[in-house]
Amino acid sequence: MPLKTQHTGRLISFEGSEGSGKSTQISLLAAHLKKLGKDVITTREPGGTEIGEQIRNIIVHNSKGDEMCPETELLLFTAARAQVVREVIAPALLAGKFVLSDRFLDSSTVYQGIARNLAAGPVAEINRFAIGNVMPDITVIIDVPTDVSIARLKQRVTDLPDRMERENIDFYTKVRDGYLLLARTMTDRIILVDGTRPIAQVSQAIWEHVRVRLGL
Amino acid sequence: MPLKTQHTGRLISFEGSEGSGKSTQISLLAAHLKKLGKDVITTREPGGTEIGEQIRNIIVHNSKGDEMCPETELLLFTAARAQVVREVIAPALLAGKFVLSDRFLDSSTVYQGIARNLAAGPVAEINRFAIGNVMPDITVIIDVPTDVSIARLKQRVTDLPDRMERENIDFYTKVRDGYLLLARTMTDRIILVDGTRPIAQVSQAIWEHVRVRLGL
Repeated sequence: MPLKTQHTGRLISFEGSEGSGKSTQISLLAAHLKKLGKDVITTREPGGTEIGEQIRNIIVHNSKGDEMCPETELLLFTAARAQVVREVIAPALLAGKFVLSDRFLDSSTVYQGIARNLAAGPVAEINRFAIGNVMPDITVIIDVPTDVSIARLKQRVTDLPDRMERENIDFYTKVRDGYLLLARTMTDRIILVDGTRPIAQVSQAIWEHVRVRLGL
Repeated sequence: MPLKTQHTGRLISFEGSEGSGKSTQISLLAAHLKKLGKDVITTREPGGTEIGEQIRNIIVHNSKGDEMCPETELLLFTAARAQVVREVIAPALLAGKFVLSDRFLDSSTVYQGIARNLAAGPVAEINRFAIGNVMPDITVIIDVPTDVSIARLKQRVTDLPDRMERENIDFYTKVRDGYLLLARTMTDRIILVDGTRPIAQVSQAIWEHVRVRLGL
């Protein structure tokens, strides 16, 4: 599964706190792209492959306490990422597809690095190792205040709460601030969208940006 | 689970190809140490913790083909290692215990690095991240020729063959050569033992070395 740098596909990652509306916005962007005749696939992290979903299970099933150390958490997330990059994303990009990913490398930078206090250097190094040369063309960060994020989470009843979703307000505040920091420092790749606005407005803002940035 | 540098315990890791006799020799060394009144625990990689055994299952259950990329394999092995270091090994060392580990960081250097051709730099970096400052005091590499290793493996009927054990002769030759290279270059930490000799002789050689090196 070699990774090649030259391809005609595009990788767009979505980032943000839980409850920020990533999956809704991924569906809406996919619909926009398909209307233009683009070939679109979506994936999620951790997961996106059979091996990645098995890794996701370990992370979710060890969410009851503090048994899992942050180093292990980072290595598991990046293990799933390494697999989805080589098994799904890189081949799709080579085939000229648009790949929309629910979370990617920035989640590790923010969750395990900034919010769980792992040193930034090793986190970046391990991220680079996991993704090879497959960087997102565009990263959409959907920003919502911490209290909105938590209130939206409480309304979710269809999914078991996982490790991430039970963290406390301090943790979510660090996550949000981490994303805002990335958005300020990596303006070439990242766009920041206000996720408190109505779904259609958020979708329109993302679509306008993607359209212009990719010349669609 | 902080890692501290000062402790009175000792970590001894065992390395070598499959079929080299590591687990037998670990039991025998543990018996020697217990006779001296030492507190001894044994652990294995990947595994040694509940989370680590779940990770081990993923590795074993994905052993049928080439689905798992070597980057994912490395990150899973080091995830299990990070957990066992912080949950089991570091606390035991702080409590003054002897820890005997069936495989540790050198397995990643040799299997994923040398034998699967991952670049040495990132493998070393990720290993360092996973183990923190918990380096083995002594590493015992048990060397057997590749044909002996494979012949012994074929006699094992009680255990399912896993990904590692079904690799071909070329792979095992790289593994063996990799261990021999480590043994030549890290003589301060590593001792090399001829695993083709009778079990009692191998055990005696290991015990003499450990006794002298640790002043027991």
